[in-house]
Amino acid sequence: MDIGTHPRPEFASGAAYVNGRFVPMAQATIPVTDWGFTRSDVTYDVVHVRGGAFFRLQDHLDRFATSMRKWRLSPPESLAEIETILHRCVALTGLQDAYVSMACARGTPAVPGSRRLSDCANHLIAYAVPWIDVLSPAIQARGAHVLIASTPRIPDASLDPTVKNYQRGDFTLGLMEAEDAGFDTAILCDAAGLVTEGPGFNVFLVHEGRVITPRHGSLGGITRQSVLDLCAMEGIPAAVEDIPRQVLEEEAEEVFLATTAGGVMPVARVGRRILGNDRPGPLSARLKDLYWRKHAEGWHATPVRYELVG
Amino acid sequence: MDIGTHPRPEFASGAAYVNGRFVPMAQATIPVTDWGFTRSDVTYDVVHVRGGAFFRLQDHLDRFATSMRKWRLSPPESLAEIETILHRCVALTGLQDAYVSMACARGTPAVPGSRRLSDCANHLIAYAVPWIDVLSPAIQARGAHVLIASTPRIPDASLDPTVKNYQRGDFTLGLMEAEDAGFDTAILCDAAGLVTEGPGFNVFLVHEGRVITPRHGSLGGITRQSVLDLCAMEGIPAAVEDIPRQVLEEEAEEVFLATTAGGVMPVARVGRRILGNDRPGPLSARLKDLYWRKHAEGWHATPVRYELVG
Repeated sequence: MDIGTHPRPEFASGAAYVNGRFVPMAQATIPVTDWGFTRSDVTYDVVHVRGGAFFRLQDHLDRFATSMRKWRLSPPESLAEIETILHRCVALTGLQDAYVSMACARGTPAVPGSRRLSDCANHLIAYAVPWIDVLSPAIQARGAHVLIASTPRIPDASLDPTVKNYQRGDFTLGLMEAEDAGFDTAILCDAAGLVTEGPGFNVFLVHEGRVITPRHGSLGGITRQSVLDLCAMEGIPAAVEDIPRQVLEEEAEEVFLATTAGGVMPVARVGRRILGNDRPGPLSARLKDLYWRKHAEGWHATPVRYELVG
Repeated sequence: MDIGTHPRPEFASGAAYVNGRFVPMAQATIPVTDWGFTRSDVTYDVVHVRGGAFFRLQDHLDRFATSMRKWRLSPPESLAEIETILHRCVALTGLQDAYVSMACARGTPAVPGSRRLSDCANHLIAYAVPWIDVLSPAIQARGAHVLIASTPRIPDASLDPTVKNYQRGDFTLGLMEAEDAGFDTAILCDAAGLVTEGPGFNVFLVHEGRVITPRHGSLGGITRQSVLDLCAMEGIPAAVEDIPRQVLEEEAEEVFLATTAGGVMPVARVGRRILGNDRPGPLSARLKDLYWRKHAEGWHATPVRYELVG
């Protein structure tokens, strides 16, 4: 089967699974009264497909399962069924490079009038759409310009950042501030002045020859883990630790961002500071190249079951 | 016209306005890719209709306008048009008692592939549904049982609580804890141990003969303002001030909650402490009665334009 030339045309811009059915993206909606919307009571995960294969699919499914357990969300579909649904979403589009999302929303009470969480019919939403970069390839190539935003990251105690969630008001304010000042994106610090993460990515620094990433206020990113794995393979010293804002603002030799939707994304400027030669740093560029080279070699790859198109 | 007997039957369970059109509630949805969902990048407001009239409609519209301005959300509809849309939503249902919601969501970028907030097509969502109480009339009559939850309220600096929003993860955890322990709902304190609010309501205490409500971590509730107005009318001392958790937990003579979707709701128990005689306190009951009596007298009432049903 020539998977590249026989996608289902109605699914060309994306295929979704909602309410137990596969539909074109334009029909993928949720009710405006769903608590997944009106309380942002929903967790999600995103896995990417590159060259016809998922990357670290099981890790994403495991994290999604952990997130759902922490917030007591339980859709009708089993994890094995969810995995098949993700394959089928990609297969319906025929895409070789895709961004694949899975979410579980609280829903609305099955008992009319109830306000109890436990009475709600939780439901799965999944979709595959063409590959999306958090920062465009052009920005990644020149190195991103990042503002350290003034809004403090929501504390872990109020909202667990390891449960991937849509409650991004602090990031939205950070993005507004960054757009106003002509930056590509923002990094947030917490109230104690420690570096956390940005909208849709983890943050890495190269500092005194070591690769470091924050311990708190951040998602346990799978690209983040991949960077740590690559450092271990290459013998590059790396650590997860508290990082004061000053280290990011004044001391880091290099900075890069890590996300499923973009991979390793080098930074060239932090606020008014220009890093190195105003281009991606050497270790950042090396890790970026390695990350994509390992993809091409089939590292953590699960081939998409395109036969599920039928 | 007999408005009670001629609602449009397809709108019996509610009428909504989405994408510039009036539709039955079952058709009121948003795309799963709308940033209003995937970033909870949305603000909203809720006004109630009682006995065929909106209560403090202009105050709700003003607050909604302020929230939208703060978060740079701007739908195609003017405020005057929004007001007419709310009237028409209620008129289509024929409801005399209704819960009427308006929201403005970020939408998705009009420029394909853009990740810029300023490229998004913001859009209005509105709907009228049958009256909903945050706590059932039976619970309100016996006095609510409220747990002081262990999750700290998200700080004002990270997410402005005066911009009414759907980012309610801290409240959801508080509700889980309350449900587990057999309570009706939860009140959250901030990290400094000051009382804030609960899921969908402001908190009031009667302490040393004064009516007090928190200064921070809370929505500037319109029912809250109404309670303060009633206190002023009745010569009851009242104040907006910082309230340590201990005052709520150990010292308050009475506690009551204030919300559009329920009005003044007395509390009978806070954690293990039983207030007074395990029933609504006298000042709470008096303010509740007064609140509804003033409604019946037409206080801040705007009659619904039921002629807009056509």
